Amino acid sequence: MYRCGTSSDMPIIECVPNVSEGRRPDVVERFVSAIRAVSGVRVLDYSSDASHNRSVLTLAGDAAPLQQAILALVEQAVAAIDLRAHTGEHPRLGAVDVIPFVPIEGVTMGDCVALAKDTAAAIAQRFGVPVYLYEEASTNPARKNLEDIRRGEFEGLAEKIAKPEWKPDFGPAQPHPTAGASVIGARMPLIAYNINLATDRLEVAKKIAAGIRHSSGGFRFVKAMGITLEGRRIVQVSMNLTNFEKTPIYRVFEVVKREAERYGVNVLESEIVGLVPAAAMVAAAEYYLQLEGFKHDQVLETRLRSAD
Amino acid sequence: MYRCGTSSDMPIIECVPNVSEGRRPDVVERFVSAIRAVSGVRVLDYSSDASHNRSVLTLAGDAAPLQQAILALVEQAVAAIDLRAHTGEHPRLGAVDVIPFVPIEGVTMGDCVALAKDTAAAIAQRFGVPVYLYEEASTNPARKNLEDIRRGEFEGLAEKIAKPEWKPDFGPAQPHPTAGASVIGARMPLIAYNINLATDRLEVAKKIAAGIRHSSGGFRFVKAMGITLEGRRIVQVSMNLTNFEKTPIYRVFEVVKREAERYGVNVLESEIVGLVPAAAMVAAAEYYLQLEGFKHDQVLETRLRSAD
Repeated sequence: MYRCGTSSDMPIIECVPNVSEGRRPDVVERFVSAIRAVSGVRVLDYSSDASHNRSVLTLAGDAAPLQQAILALVEQAVAAIDLRAHTGEHPRLGAVDVIPFVPIEGVTMGDCVALAKDTAAAIAQRFGVPVYLYEEASTNPARKNLEDIRRGEFEGLAEKIAKPEWKPDFGPAQPHPTAGASVIGARMPLIAYNINLATDRLEVAKKIAAGIRHSSGGFRFVKAMGITLEGRRIVQVSMNLTNFEKTPIYRVFEVVKREAERYGVNVLESEIVGLVPAAAMVAAAEYYLQLEGFKHDQVLETRLRSAD
Repeated sequence: MYRCGTSSDMPIIECVPNVSEGRRPDVVERFVSAIRAVSGVRVLDYSSDASHNRSVLTLAGDAAPLQQAILALVEQAVAAIDLRAHTGEHPRLGAVDVIPFVPIEGVTMGDCVALAKDTAAAIAQRFGVPVYLYEEASTNPARKNLEDIRRGEFEGLAEKIAKPEWKPDFGPAQPHPTAGASVIGARMPLIAYNINLATDRLEVAKKIAAGIRHSSGGFRFVKAMGITLEGRRIVQVSMNLTNFEKTPIYRVFEVVKREAERYGVNVLESEIVGLVPAAAMVAAAEYYLQLEGFKHDQVLETRLRSAD
């Protein structure tokens, strides 16, 4: 038997810029229009949160058009946002606060790191906005985590950026007067995953969260906290899975279920918030169905994208 | 919060023509070239089996280009294949033996039925090949199953087709002298799914297969048999799942596992042969992870295909 499948391997990078504007829909629409004007970039999703005063956009494309779209976004955002007058619940350092590049298909993490650095240099040069590199693009272990870089927020930036250890990776060692600074980097796709427990005992969710998160001895790529879902009288283990290849969803689910049993509690349900890579879902199916030798390109839709 | 995702809904139909030629690679390549010459049609896969003397091609595209590609294939196959001299293990009625259209995305089964009938009429008219409609395109309950239509094969066709109840749906009531007849229809994607058991007791696989297949009282959309994997000294429940939405993979897997337990046998592993729709894998992940409210367009790659 001979068999033949062809592949053209069109690279896909995801980019999820977070901008510090979530209360003026017309301004956000202008940002989106500027991005859509770039051919080769698709806007997969965008959403605004008024209490956070922040919008999250999800874009996809190849490196060059994606960089062009980000530069167009920054130009618009620097013109429209004044951090001195910005209030909201979510911590932020700048107008375009965070720009992660995420490898999806046909590209490596290294490609995304290179794109992040190149984009960071262009933003600093064109708009005079200082830029910090984070996560996989970080060149300094103390400046890998977004939370560490953002601590002190816009209001504390002038003082922080003057310290030698907080000299930005690109651009001036002082905040842009209205646009602050941006944090740019590369990371794996992030999955927002929650497991709801059939109990109202918050301490159970908190104990399980502490058991599975990296910071207190759990899985390397899990951030977790226990919260109460007020309206439903149940508790939730609320998580971010930051590398679904190395810490897969199903393993986290099974451990949470097992830990809950120890307290006499059942898992009620779980939920994925926002987007999830197909590979993460396929990996769960493979695990539970005990699938041997399954290849991702056996998924019809994957084959569709790679065929001639 | 406002949220916005756009969709352009490019329709995708899969078509899996089976041609009665599996021993002359150059002839098969000519068939594939004729299909590839049609813009808007992608060849996802093709494979030939010499002992069957048969090739299976997997194409994808929208209705119009797909029909054009099928007509190009039939033209080539009618010219190159002479059923009078054809031998092989697999039953066959004609040169292009079977042509199923399968709805994948943005199309209904009704669309595929219409495409099947239209294509059948065109083949009968252009090439003088009689055509039977089958599965969802069938207009006669006694002629729904491919096996019933194909019984007697090419060699018995002249006698069969002369009977009033076997008058073809399109074309002359006599076989094409060298190309026989074709069977054209519409169906759900078919998943070839096998479960290997940690035993060499063939009767266990046979009993389980009998328990889960439709023909002997099992699931509506399961065909199954028990076989021995000679080289490995284990047995297998070998299945076709003919409607994964109504009889999902995970339900079949769980029942096979439970039935095997009754004989003191474990499931060793399972396998999917060939392509599987992403939705079938996602459904398994949803079931085992107890995912609530999950929508298929949360899968990043699905969103990528439907975005602007």
